[in-house]
Amino acid sequence: MAKKAAVEEKGITPEELSKEFKEYSVAEFFKRNRQMLGYTGKVRSLTTVVHEYVTNSLDACEDARVLPDLLVEITELPDGHFKVAAEDNGTGIPKPNIGQALGQLLSGTKFMQRQQKRGQQGIGASYCTLFSQITTGKETHVKTSVGDYKVYECDVSIDINKNTPAIRNEKEYSGKFKGTRIETELAEVEYNRSAFGVYEYLRRTAIANPHAQITLVEPNKEITVFPRATKEIPKMPKKVLPHPLGITTSDLVDMAGVTDGRKIGSFLEKEFSRVSSERVAEIQSLMPKDPKTGKPMCDFDRSPKSLQWAEAEKIVGAIQKIKWIAPESDSLQPIGAKELEKSLKNLLAPEELRVIERPPKVFRGGISFMVEAAVAYGGKAGAAANQQNGSGNAGGAAGGETRGEAMRFANRVPLLFDAGACAIAEAVKTVDWARYDLKDWENLPVSIFVNFTSVYVPYTGAGKLAISAEEEIVTEIRQALMEAARGVAIYLREMRRAEEQEHRRSLFFRYINEVAQCLHDVTGTEKTVLAAKLKKLAEENTSLLEAQEADEEEGLEELEKAAEKELKGERGEDE
Amino acid sequence: MAKKAAVEEKGITPEELSKEFKEYSVAEFFKRNRQMLGYTGKVRSLTTVVHEYVTNSLDACEDARVLPDLLVEITELPDGHFKVAAEDNGTGIPKPNIGQALGQLLSGTKFMQRQQKRGQQGIGASYCTLFSQITTGKETHVKTSVGDYKVYECDVSIDINKNTPAIRNEKEYSGKFKGTRIETELAEVEYNRSAFGVYEYLRRTAIANPHAQITLVEPNKEITVFPRATKEIPKMPKKVLPHPLGITTSDLVDMAGVTDGRKIGSFLEKEFSRVSSERVAEIQSLMPKDPKTGKPMCDFDRSPKSLQWAEAEKIVGAIQKIKWIAPESDSLQPIGAKELEKSLKNLLAPEELRVIERPPKVFRGGISFMVEAAVAYGGKAGAAANQQNGSGNAGGAAGGETRGEAMRFANRVPLLFDAGACAIAEAVKTVDWARYDLKDWENLPVSIFVNFTSVYVPYTGAGKLAISAEEEIVTEIRQALMEAARGVAIYLREMRRAEEQEHRRSLFFRYINEVAQCLHDVTGTEKTVLAAKLKKLAEENTSLLEAQEADEEEGLEELEKAAEKELKGERGEDE
Repeated sequence: MAKKAAVEEKGITPEELSKEFKEYSVAEFFKRNRQMLGYTGKVRSLTTVVHEYVTNSLDACEDARVLPDLLVEITELPDGHFKVAAEDNGTGIPKPNIGQALGQLLSGTKFMQRQQKRGQQGIGASYCTLFSQITTGKETHVKTSVGDYKVYECDVSIDINKNTPAIRNEKEYSGKFKGTRIETELAEVEYNRSAFGVYEYLRRTAIANPHAQITLVEPNKEITVFPRATKEIPKMPKKVLPHPLGITTSDLVDMAGVTDGRKIGSFLEKEFSRVSSERVAEIQSLMPKDPKTGKPMCDFDRSPKSLQWAEAEKIVGAIQKIKWIAPESDSLQPIGAKELEKSLKNLLAPEELRVIERPPKVFRGGISFMVEAAVAYGGKAGAAANQQNGSGNAGGAAGGETRGEAMRFANRVPLLFDAGACAIAEAVKTVDWARYDLKDWENLPVSIFVNFTSVYVPYTGAGKLAISAEEEIVTEIRQALMEAARGVAIYLREMRRAEEQEHRRSLFFRYINEVAQCLHDVTGTEKTVLAAKLKKLAEENTSLLEAQEADEEEGLEELEKAAEKELKGERGEDE
Repeated sequence: MAKKAAVEEKGITPEELSKEFKEYSVAEFFKRNRQMLGYTGKVRSLTTVVHEYVTNSLDACEDARVLPDLLVEITELPDGHFKVAAEDNGTGIPKPNIGQALGQLLSGTKFMQRQQKRGQQGIGASYCTLFSQITTGKETHVKTSVGDYKVYECDVSIDINKNTPAIRNEKEYSGKFKGTRIETELAEVEYNRSAFGVYEYLRRTAIANPHAQITLVEPNKEITVFPRATKEIPKMPKKVLPHPLGITTSDLVDMAGVTDGRKIGSFLEKEFSRVSSERVAEIQSLMPKDPKTGKPMCDFDRSPKSLQWAEAEKIVGAIQKIKWIAPESDSLQPIGAKELEKSLKNLLAPEELRVIERPPKVFRGGISFMVEAAVAYGGKAGAAANQQNGSGNAGGAAGGETRGEAMRFANRVPLLFDAGACAIAEAVKTVDWARYDLKDWENLPVSIFVNFTSVYVPYTGAGKLAISAEEEIVTEIRQALMEAARGVAIYLREMRRAEEQEHRRSLFFRYINEVAQCLHDVTGTEKTVLAAKLKKLAEENTSLLEAQEADEEEGLEELEKAAEKELKGERGEDE
């Protein structure tokens, strides 16, 4: 086929083509593709900036072991510019690292850490600096102190072609301030209280972080305080060694290259969780035998540095064959059922609320995660977002006319946009709400809440808007939702049943005396006696009905198991 | 608030924190976040790799002005590894640029070019090299020639920490081969013929590229040729200067810094489309006046290099106030209604097919785009994917049990995954199919086709799986779909009407003679005369009904206008 092509008429010359090759910095890339980072739409862009600063602030407070006390201040400037100021009482940023923290994409403290953090990519805050730069040409001002009574201030910008920070106007002076305050000026943004706005974002952040106090100053100078619901600082999530089931050949080879373990065996014990010397022996025994020596391939007493890809591949293969204990879950920091219930009651004062905290599960073989879910009915549920923020826009997360809202969180961070492709949205969609008398939940006073907790959140994009809909995750969230919904369903049915019984009783009792009278006339039996008997009958009768309905309840769980099977079936289509 | 925090108990120390700061290469970033590039699920990952190579091949053939002749060969290897070989007859890769083309993320010929290309990010092919590396530890082999009778071969890999290419085993020899052949070995992938598989991907690529011939060799050695439907090479899309309405202040400042225009005025004329000297004068006149001199701010005779941000901002503001001619559309290379119809008929042999090519439109003020849409009914439409590939998996793009399929394309590249968040999916969802007797299209033999054409496709992610659902785009696609659907609806109704008429006629005619007989007995009029009169009556009668139904047709367009209005209303919620 090549021959034919070779003789075809002239196109671009190799020289021209060669000239067209260029390299681009990651800053340039994201400058041209802002929508990948959640910068779509003026309202959302503003929310995204606040989101980046607030998540960093909450992480910084966690590191400092203090109760977060956050201030977000949004000011409208001429020419449609806005100023965002975000202040926290966290660790502060060490002076030498300010450039990396705020002026360079893909740098920071969180990327590939084995500890649960809200941030994990090292892009967010630096992109805010870049976004300010490309919409207003301004630098971003930072004031920070690590608590050594020295306060440091400077202006940060990014050299877009090199993705390197530029620091100007440095000031240093003594003071008691500890934490970080960032001020940045933006254009191509808009402020309002819609479901995608800053207000709603902070409201949800408060729900998922009951230990935080968040103060918002809006452009109209209105001040809202989302108060702290608990004074308990969440325990610091442990850093975890990777679980053997979670690693790929490539990881193993990389780690073998940098470990200070002397032997392959000790390296495995040292660098992975749940790996004992017994396990190492087990792995060794599962390695394919060397045809000549008959010994298992790859001597585990060799140096890890000498580990070959083919050997590593076999080790990973052997690991898959072993039954492992699940990963430690103390690496996970859920909100906690108790705390979550507190803050949801606080906010929604619902008629009925079911909060579910599921035990840790594992996805992709070795990454542990945990799901918390809640369904709230009545009170300020569902419509709450709008009653509170009084915006013209009706509707919760979904926007539009609906009254029910589905609130999605990852590591306590609200996910406001891009619900379409999200594991949580997917799970909500696949639950058969009719079974829980919530078929029409989007038009009912219902708030659905899901928080996904993991050291590694598989976001679908750099914008961290949605959780990749991987099957284990969707299924687990689905289970949690069904559990919560069942609780609410039972409440709804009890309500209904109580009414019906009351109705039946009253009907019966209303006529009981007439009936007794007639029977008396017919049988001559004492009227009071008859009345008493009839009353007794009535009670038995209704309690019988109760029993029946109770049985129906128990049908629920079977139904769900069936539903699960179906779901698995549907899912068969890809892998 | 800081004071309180400062006295709280010890967390991480500044020194510890400082040590945690690290920098990461973009290769490292995407290594850890493969799902952002479409590498989710084993089947999809394989399709994504093929997608990257095939789009590059088609672009290379366009540059070389040859009819694409592509070969994709997938071989299954031991240990669940697969080999993908992709060969084309395009420009070939100049030897000095092979590293940039295949061994370095964010480099290539396409990023930020002002010319319509399938690729646009400079990530795809290099990430395939990386993916091979992290799943099998292997290098990617390339054989290429720019047609100078010198053939060059080598192995490429990426230094992940530096995001730089490593080239080994270079060979050079003379030969007639022109184009590129890439061979890469992958693990964590799977081959099947599901709706997300390589077969379906190439089938759709063929539909949208009727001038290409694509040959697929599957692991079972089965060979499928998607034949060329036309020998016309699509005309080369022009490179375009940016349209004034499309630029931001930041772009303007950047361009002013690098232009060789001497004066701000000539710079604007030179670097932007649709800008004449009259326009420049108009812009100048719209600039705010200097309070002292009374002259318009910013002298356009100054050097562009001296342009200040504030001035640039005012220029952009002035540009917004002017009525501009729409951007040139010769920068766009649609498939073309004629060609598209040919290839859809080829493939689906539908009972009814409506292909719509809409005139170019503009989004984000200055980026021109164009929508082609088609709705096919009957024949092999809808179910085609499965009839053809005979996979167990029923369903078109959507997968699952459905028979209707919606095929999404951007610059003739099929979008198989992540339909949830896509502008095209959004548009399909919002069309009121019931109005076109296609309410249940997902269960009918229906293929919906949309191709979005633009110099800049606003992908939602680096994975290029979906088009960002920006309002102008969704609305335009929606219009195109409704236009196409109307055509099909008319066909469906004519079918139905014809049947009904036939039925009425036959009924009537069946009894016409009896009726005539009776009338004759009563009136004595000649039976044949009566029969004739009655026949005439019958015809008029049915044609009357036809007229009525025709009127109903015309109701359609009004209905749609109304629907549009509603839609706009709903959209109000964000900006």
